[in-house]
Amino acid sequence: MLTTPAYAVADAISPLAPFTLERRAPGPHEVLIDILYCGVCHSDIHQARDEWGGSIFPMVPGHEIIGRVAAVGAQVTTYKHGDAVGVGCFVDSCRRCPSCQAGEEQYCDFGMSGTYNSYERGSDGRFDKTRPTYGGYSTRITVNEAYVVRVPEAIPLDRAAPLLCAGITTYSPLKHFGVKAGDKVAVVGLGGLGHMAVKIAAAMGAQVTVLSTSESKRADALALGASDFAATRDGSVFKSHARRFDFIVDTVSAEHDYNAYLELLTLDGTMVLLGIPEAPAPVAAGALIRKRRRLAGSMIGGIRETQEMLDFCAQHGVAADIELIPIERVNEAYERMLRSDVRYRFVIDIASWAAAAP
Amino acid sequence: MLTTPAYAVADAISPLAPFTLERRAPGPHEVLIDILYCGVCHSDIHQARDEWGGSIFPMVPGHEIIGRVAAVGAQVTTYKHGDAVGVGCFVDSCRRCPSCQAGEEQYCDFGMSGTYNSYERGSDGRFDKTRPTYGGYSTRITVNEAYVVRVPEAIPLDRAAPLLCAGITTYSPLKHFGVKAGDKVAVVGLGGLGHMAVKIAAAMGAQVTVLSTSESKRADALALGASDFAATRDGSVFKSHARRFDFIVDTVSAEHDYNAYLELLTLDGTMVLLGIPEAPAPVAAGALIRKRRRLAGSMIGGIRETQEMLDFCAQHGVAADIELIPIERVNEAYERMLRSDVRYRFVIDIASWAAAAP
Repeated sequence: MLTTPAYAVADAISPLAPFTLERRAPGPHEVLIDILYCGVCHSDIHQARDEWGGSIFPMVPGHEIIGRVAAVGAQVTTYKHGDAVGVGCFVDSCRRCPSCQAGEEQYCDFGMSGTYNSYERGSDGRFDKTRPTYGGYSTRITVNEAYVVRVPEAIPLDRAAPLLCAGITTYSPLKHFGVKAGDKVAVVGLGGLGHMAVKIAAAMGAQVTVLSTSESKRADALALGASDFAATRDGSVFKSHARRFDFIVDTVSAEHDYNAYLELLTLDGTMVLLGIPEAPAPVAAGALIRKRRRLAGSMIGGIRETQEMLDFCAQHGVAADIELIPIERVNEAYERMLRSDVRYRFVIDIASWAAAAP
Repeated sequence: MLTTPAYAVADAISPLAPFTLERRAPGPHEVLIDILYCGVCHSDIHQARDEWGGSIFPMVPGHEIIGRVAAVGAQVTTYKHGDAVGVGCFVDSCRRCPSCQAGEEQYCDFGMSGTYNSYERGSDGRFDKTRPTYGGYSTRITVNEAYVVRVPEAIPLDRAAPLLCAGITTYSPLKHFGVKAGDKVAVVGLGGLGHMAVKIAAAMGAQVTVLSTSESKRADALALGASDFAATRDGSVFKSHARRFDFIVDTVSAEHDYNAYLELLTLDGTMVLLGIPEAPAPVAAGALIRKRRRLAGSMIGGIRETQEMLDFCAQHGVAADIELIPIERVNEAYERMLRSDVRYRFVIDIASWAAAAP
């Protein structure tokens, strides 16, 4: 076993604090990764504070992991020492169900093995509750090669980290629902997910409009690649932009009126939900029926599609806008995220921390 | 003008009663139709009783019209005297907007001219509020040939009438969302729409399951072509059939829990709403996100697709199950429909009434 420094929360009310965990030496199909960077996702906070219930403590969060291969198992052929690689929201799945067989492991019928706050699996595909998973707020991780992606060297590695969650979560629905050059796409909410949705949709050639509550993000929206911006607070946008969009990416988890946004879709338009508000929101059947609209949901993306997304980002010069922080400031980062005071993703500089370690 | 016997409601609280209206002689592109049969749709009741607001009185309901061409305008080439034809839910649209141009006239940006409770249009495509439309509870109707469909002689004409609304309303989403042989399709609710959805989906080669509140419709469901039936009242179906269906046709207008039905969809499954409950219903984003499901709506179908549906029904021996009634019993039929006491559509025998007229 490989003793590994980490940051963990001991329970739902404690801050992140130094912790030590053991990583296994890579098995025949596994890769040991020296972690360089790890993005801080809002879901890290939800899970660390047990806001979704069922959290497993102690918890080492982090599922936007970038690193370099330190060692590979005997049977590994895909990766070699020194390769830049990434690990996203999950490190295993049942590998047997139709979703896994289709390369859509995120929809595994038996549930993914989350990169943290979850369990490793036995060779029978079942969860092994004696082996919790620990995430990227740590200096290394051991992962089966089938759940590792290659990071093109064209992408700055620190700015690549958020692609593993925020990037794939927005790329996947844009791709799956067929967004193409010239399509009119609205992005609702300009946070970590929203800023990636704007960049990726624009790189796909779509005409992107950002819909955000206040005017304060107009300049950023345009700089990120949007061609239009509308503040939603005064409500007039819901008339002026009626039936305008082919596709809406809704990144907002706070309560909001789906029906108002549905009316912004053209005939056969789709609005895809990425955020889960606390309570189910009323949907007017008429808003869907009148223009054969669709309200859909999408969750991260499969391994194959994550690789495709990274290659797409490399080709189009897309990377996240980040603020790089030392791991000692991660608790402060959480507080700032709760105030939406980040443009647009914190990334922990694990490399410097590991280098400074005794 | 052609003086024409009809049945009308004078206002929202009066029963249907004999009425006389004037039909215009066919213009250059119009067809005069001797009506033989007219189906009774639940929306006839809603509009006659002004339950949706804005009803135009006096009102002659009826938008499931089957008849034979009695005369054609000078420029009409599509139809000739004696042809069996149908008229559905609309008799005109703006003809200019993208939806109309695409042959999806039902989604006209400026609104269809409903077959009744609406207005004819001027040559500029605008509504002419001096000319209300009157529907199929009458012995003849004059309609532009572009809004008329041909009824294949293989379909019994009385049983063809409900195809013009209930048939196309269910065929269109099944076709649009790509239901194909072998797909697992659930039909929620076994009324006028539901019974057509079962027949059409089965004719498409789908494996059809009917989900209905009570056991009482099991035998009918199987006779109509379903391979499975489940009563929803006891709730166990929501566990036993979880993630089973590729597609759900939801024909129910009464309040019900969309989320419970969404959980019956497999990965990438779609539930399409055809009914509009009085109040918007809560939708849990998680139910969509967890399996990339879609909640959609669909409204009748365009003229081209209505013709395609009729040809499909002729080819597959599909027609509505009806109870043929004399027009004098239409008020009684309304009362029975409100008790769901019809299997599965009333059709008014306009032919006999017209033959008996002085």
